[in-house]
Amino acid sequence: MKTVTLKQIANELNISVTTVSKALKNYPDVSKKTRQRVLELAKSLDYTPNAYAVSLRMKQSKTIGVIVPDTVHHFFSTVIKGILKEAESRDYMVILMQSNERFDLEKKQIDLLMSKGVDGILVSLSNDTKKFDHLQKVIDYNIPLVLFDKISKTLKCSKVYIDDRKAAYDAVTYLIKKGFKRIAHFRGDLNPQNSIDRFLGYKQALLDNGIPFDPELVYMCNNNADFDDGYNNAKKLITDHGSNVDAIFTITDLVAIGIIKYFKDHDIKVPDDIALFGFSNWFMSSVICPTLTTVEQHAFEIGEQSSKILFDEIQCKLTKTPIKHKNIIIPTEMIFRESS
Amino acid sequence: MKTVTLKQIANELNISVTTVSKALKNYPDVSKKTRQRVLELAKSLDYTPNAYAVSLRMKQSKTIGVIVPDTVHHFFSTVIKGILKEAESRDYMVILMQSNERFDLEKKQIDLLMSKGVDGILVSLSNDTKKFDHLQKVIDYNIPLVLFDKISKTLKCSKVYIDDRKAAYDAVTYLIKKGFKRIAHFRGDLNPQNSIDRFLGYKQALLDNGIPFDPELVYMCNNNADFDDGYNNAKKLITDHGSNVDAIFTITDLVAIGIIKYFKDHDIKVPDDIALFGFSNWFMSSVICPTLTTVEQHAFEIGEQSSKILFDEIQCKLTKTPIKHKNIIIPTEMIFRESS
Repeated sequence: MKTVTLKQIANELNISVTTVSKALKNYPDVSKKTRQRVLELAKSLDYTPNAYAVSLRMKQSKTIGVIVPDTVHHFFSTVIKGILKEAESRDYMVILMQSNERFDLEKKQIDLLMSKGVDGILVSLSNDTKKFDHLQKVIDYNIPLVLFDKISKTLKCSKVYIDDRKAAYDAVTYLIKKGFKRIAHFRGDLNPQNSIDRFLGYKQALLDNGIPFDPELVYMCNNNADFDDGYNNAKKLITDHGSNVDAIFTITDLVAIGIIKYFKDHDIKVPDDIALFGFSNWFMSSVICPTLTTVEQHAFEIGEQSSKILFDEIQCKLTKTPIKHKNIIIPTEMIFRESS
Repeated sequence: MKTVTLKQIANELNISVTTVSKALKNYPDVSKKTRQRVLELAKSLDYTPNAYAVSLRMKQSKTIGVIVPDTVHHFFSTVIKGILKEAESRDYMVILMQSNERFDLEKKQIDLLMSKGVDGILVSLSNDTKKFDHLQKVIDYNIPLVLFDKISKTLKCSKVYIDDRKAAYDAVTYLIKKGFKRIAHFRGDLNPQNSIDRFLGYKQALLDNGIPFDPELVYMCNNNADFDDGYNNAKKLITDHGSNVDAIFTITDLVAIGIIKYFKDHDIKVPDDIALFGFSNWFMSSVICPTLTTVEQHAFEIGEQSSKILFDEIQCKLTKTPIKHKNIIIPTEMIFRESS
């Protein structure tokens, strides 16, 4: 099929290519009559702007792609805010995609972003991602790639994340020092690195403080690690252990809030009967009652940092400067509230 | 600049175009050696897949674009879930964009989606959108367009929304019938239709029940209509009116939760001192204490319906069947909880 060009339209109407381009972009300095003629001809010829040709000429599409597992978790929507701020200050557009924690979707989305000619890609891996060929391909094609939050240790690219193990270790150590001994953990999915590390931090804190690790006190949250996981696992925990548990450390605040709801419905007092320590410092954690002790993981800063690095790498590529990959670990803090 | 084609690579390496294509897509049935040769040649020739050529051939890119004002509000992330469900069942990819309630960003995002060759576009308008040329252009280019939630009444395209005026009218009427007389309204931005309609419904319910409309009881929420708006306006309300207000109807649940926080911090009891009626039935509204009376607006269904209509219109366009635009009004219900 013959591709219609701006030049053809310009020739046909006996006007300049610039005028055709402006008319199609709805510039105010093109008369309504001319715009109409251009639009009608463009339509009848099936002309559509070839962004790819533009980006080939410019070697820059001024767009980046971002793949997150979901946008329901406030963590990711806050990261996105940080990314959008950096993008906007550089006049960059952001294409968002949501993998729904699925490897197959994530792969297809990588392909799509590459075919759409984005200048760089930011990814937080799905819980389901165990192989990384699709990301290696991005690197092989010399397209800047930065991983954040849920990362792969093996891929050679820049990464921005937190020290999940230390954060969990410190949280559980705090609970132990407060006198809690039977500390349960509502953990995340078995695959993603951050979930593994939070579990390992929990376990190490117990062992370092002479508390035997009891696998019966560890409950799995499903793929999403959300409110229902908290509610349902709280029910199982009480059924299994009754009053022989005095604290819970959870993978996310949403899970902790599910626990709070279950406990409220069943007259279990927090922190008097069972203390709670969440993770991520959702804004609701300071509003819910009791207010929730948690880990601040600086989602906005994670978004800012990972996109700054991406834009630097895009710039290096444009100026043919060698790229030095970065491994940025964002420090976390504990926020102490009523629930512990 | 000469565009490199699969054929050129195939000829150069003396293999089939299919093999080149498979190699670039990382198909497992291509030997590692062949893949390496293809990748190196592709890289040195600066080849990148031309999705646009593919879509021109296929007349279908199997992608749609979605523009929402933000992803922090649970309403939009739930709508997106509904859209993703419908897209996935049809093997369609979804490109998300976030306008941050800004008209200039929304316009640029429309241009970008069009240039990326999406088959159709779903939009919820930014609070800032007062002119619709950018959307008219989508229609002029014969690209299926469906508006949802924040819509324009004048554009000739399909729309999915709720009857905001009726929903607000019913909510305020309920409060009046419960005996509340001094009912404040924390309203949304002055521009978007849904905000205007919720305010008008509030006002009409007062007038129809013989309660004089007092503009001093109406407080503006900023662009985002969020938690801080609720908190700060609650402070102003108490400063201005003290105990001479007995209920508040809010534009969103997030605003109501900000009010709950302020009241909690200042020993004001809900519903005993001041009752609350929110809007959107966020899952936290059934968890917060007191639990929040609200309007269920079926965000997931709005996502499902608007994307179903979009896919139907894409299908009509492919089969050259005339498109009949639809105006779908999703019914809402009141959910009664502790706060009223």
